Amino acid sequence: MISIGIDVGSVAAKAVAFNGEKIMATAIIPTGWSPKESGNRLLEEILNKSQLTLDEVHAIVGTGYGRVSLDFINKKVTEITCHGRGAHFINPEIRTVIDIGGQDSKVIRLNESGLVMDFLMNDKCAAGTGRFLQVMANTMEMDVSQLSETAGDAKPENINSMCTVFAESEVISLMAEGASKESIAAGLLQSVCNKTYSLVSRVGAEDQVFFSGGVSQNPLLKKYLSDKLGVEIQVSDLSQFIGAIGAAIIAYEL
Amino acid sequence: MISIGIDVGSVAAKAVAFNGEKIMATAIIPTGWSPKESGNRLLEEILNKSQLTLDEVHAIVGTGYGRVSLDFINKKVTEITCHGRGAHFINPEIRTVIDIGGQDSKVIRLNESGLVMDFLMNDKCAAGTGRFLQVMANTMEMDVSQLSETAGDAKPENINSMCTVFAESEVISLMAEGASKESIAAGLLQSVCNKTYSLVSRVGAEDQVFFSGGVSQNPLLKKYLSDKLGVEIQVSDLSQFIGAIGAAIIAYEL
Ligand code: SF4
Repeated sequence: MISIGIDVGSVAAKAVAFNGEKIMATAIIPTGWSPKESGNRLLEEILNKSQLTLDEVHAIVGTGYGRVSLDFINKKVTEITCHGRGAHFINPEIRTVIDIGGQDSKVIRLNESGLVMDFLMNDKCAAGTGRFLQVMANTMEMDVSQLSETAGDAKPENINSMCTVFAESEVISLMAEGASKESIAAGLLQSVCNKTYSLVSRVGAEDQVFFSGGVSQNPLLKKYLSDKLGVEIQVSDLSQFIGAIGAAIIAYEL
Repeated sequence: MISIGIDVGSVAAKAVAFNGEKIMATAIIPTGWSPKESGNRLLEEILNKSQLTLDEVHAIVGTGYGRVSLDFINKKVTEITCHGRGAHFINPEIRTVIDIGGQDSKVIRLNESGLVMDFLMNDKCAAGTGRFLQVMANTMEMDVSQLSETAGDAKPENINSMCTVFAESEVISLMAEGASKESIAAGLLQSVCNKTYSLVSRVGAEDQVFFSGGVSQNPLLKKYLSDKLGVEIQVSDLSQFIGAIGAAIIAYEL
């Protein structure tokens, strides 16, 4: 028996196929302008990758902000629930999930069964999300994926403004004053770390801590967050798929 | 006897000369990169305009974020206090001042003597400030001063995101979907109105209400705010100079 989970985020749409024991295939595409169209394309891709026809699929669960646009799913489930289930699947010892996506960030506390005990979400302010890094990378004329590598072990420049708009002006000033790209990149990652930390503090972080979402693919941010929290946070190659994995698990149980 | 008040804001630096009864001259210049330099230039300009030499000036008080950079002033006073005194000078019946500047917004409650009873300030988030309108005007390829006129009496487009960054994406989508510039401009002013209203609600607005700061020169926003508050709010040709006027009054009393 095979189930599928689809997570249509603001930036990327992710899907996984699950056989009750392990993840058999993953697919990821940019969400683009039409979540509905991306959903259809993603379904095709995950079926291809797992060499299945739609008839052979037990059930499909959709999550993420674009889930409302999907017309082929059996059920819609919130990101929070799916992230909880997905993280628990990766490692049942996980009690805190920090998820930083393209346009939001959330902190979820789980119990030993992977059920959500508490959570806090920021989807109102671009600061502390992937969008902040995207805007800043544009300003610095580099790709967002280069920030971590560029920063290396440079001493982070102090960025005073949490606000994306004001921080952008600060970055422009810093560049004009001759601050190095390395130290500015480090400062920007530090800014996301600080904003995330203030979200985490409000929910409380219990060990073990897992870092998911597109932004978790950023090794230096993982290091900063680990240092600030005083625990070694975990990431996984599947970090971007956590929501989709949770959705697939829930679909499997339908 | 003549005193001078200087208010170095994030976008514009303003100065007035005061003779104990009325404002004899005003001057305004862009703040630019160096608040110190702008301050010096502004001092020269206000002295010229009021045909005075520095020796003839009783005292100078500085306010605004750039006041720390001014080395020719006798005293520094916070914006909040200066705005209170300035608004009270314009009309002693004023009990609430809503000030929206280039990078911040504040609501100040005054007693019958013009002393500050309570205030709330937002200088952390670009939403609801002149900066929000500046960013959006850029996106729409118009000057920020054209927004009110462009909007006219168009029905405001609903802008869901309060955040400047997310709202900018919404505006781009709205333009792509063919929404009119008029209705988008109206929606943007409505957004600033809503954000301001939430600040006002937290302090409480008592009649009479005065609207100051650079953004108060926006007639449609004044109308929206009046409608939302249910009172006719007041503006003045001197609205941008309220902080400088308060500073000049305090300087006169030194
Ligand atoms: S602080 Fe900046 S990034 Fe955050 S909501 Fe306000 S405008 Fe947006």
